[in-house]
Amino acid sequence: MTYEECIQACIDCMEACNRCYDACLKEENVKMMVECIRTDRECADICALAIKSMQSNSPFAAQICKLCAEICEACGNECKKHDHQHCQECAEACYRCAEACRSMAK
Amino acid sequence: MTYEECIQACIDCMEACNRCYDACLKEENVKMMVECIRTDRECADICALAIKSMQSNSPFAAQICKLCAEICEACGNECKKHDHQHCQECAEACYRCAEACRSMAK
Amino acid sequence: MTYEECIQACIDCMEACNRCYDACLKEENVKMMVECIRTDRECADICALAIKSMQSNSPFAAQICKLCAEICEACGNECKKHDHQHCQECAEACYRCAEACRSMAK
Amino acid sequence: MTYEECIQACIDCMEACNRCYDACLKEENVKMMVECIRTDRECADICALAIKSMQSNSPFAAQICKLCAEICEACGNECKKHDHQHCQECAEACYRCAEACRSMAK
Repeated sequence: MTYEECIQACIDCMEACNRCYDACLKEENVKMMVECIRTDRECADICALAIKSMQSNSPFAAQICKLCAEICEACGNECKKHDHQHCQECAEACYRCAEACRSMAK
Repeated sequence: MTYEECIQACIDCMEACNRCYDACLKEENVKMMVECIRTDRECADICALAIKSMQSNSPFAAQICKLCAEICEACGNECKKHDHQHCQECAEACYRCAEACRSMAK
Repeated sequence: MTYEECIQACIDCMEACNRCYDACLKEENVKMMVECIRTDRECADICALAIKSMQSNSPFAAQICKLCAEICEACGNECKKHDHQHCQECAEACYRCAEACRSMAK
Repeated sequence: MTYEECIQACIDCMEACNRCYDACLKEENVKMMVECIRTDRECADICALAIKSMQSNSPFAAQICKLCAEICEACGNECKKHDHQHCQECAEACYRCAEACRSMAK
């Protein structure tokens, strides 16, 4: 795992979460998507912070990636529950990012 | 209008938007709150950026405050439509912040 | 320690870090302030995220506060080294915030 | 200009600014880089917000892109002054992003 690969995983996950957030808000049954909306937002935000920390060589990059991995994992678990394509795609991006961030955090 | 007053208005508005966002997601009729959820998030984020820019003496503080005023105004207009107390309170905080940011932007 | 007190400690710390960042960039001897500039930025950003997470009832608020405590502690240690008033004041705000976030994270 | 192209220009610019910020802080003559450090930070932050707004279909995406274009332009002008490769590369990324955001803002 290189720094570059982890940054790319975070960029992909941030995009998937932002798109899933938007798509969830447009779903007919929004009520069912409430937790997904919430975790999508949290996950996109921590990914953005992880990207910034890696790109700017933050002394806290490893710790931020560790937290990012935890939130990505949780967001993936939430998205996984829903059949919408945007949720399934988001879950995959979250799991990939969680794995990348975990190995970066070591 | 001093810098300090505008920062405080942004802090108050950010708080109101974050709380309204959370409360909207918990409302029985979430469907009705979708635009409010969206604008609350946008408004809290631009207020956070405006606070940072003013506190750190950003050369772009005036331009950021100008945009913040526009988003606060729009968020206030959206919140205003809903009778929930958190929406009404948020609308007031948004309008106060919009006014503060407008005069700061000049 | 209530949620409100921890949010306030983060708001105070964010402000101190943003002001210290700006003041450090204006110091005659900037070279000496490089690490302080860096940690001030990191600390202000994680405080902003912690505030958002607590105000919006994030399911990750405790984990974000835990990381915030670590970064505040490190920023306090860096600021403490410098005699400038803005650094000393920032160190104090960082330590207070670290303590508040640590007890919130439990 | 598609949405996708503008998002990519912002991602590239954010990366260039974050790397330039880090590299500037490591320069022997930091004193000379102070304004560059400052605008790099501002520019990376507004690019991050523009990315989020476009990816999540924000009703304020156009306005945020307009501001992003202004800050990118100013950051490009600052970076352009310095001969370091990271500054020259950042200036180019800033100008490309400014152009992309301007056409998006229309």
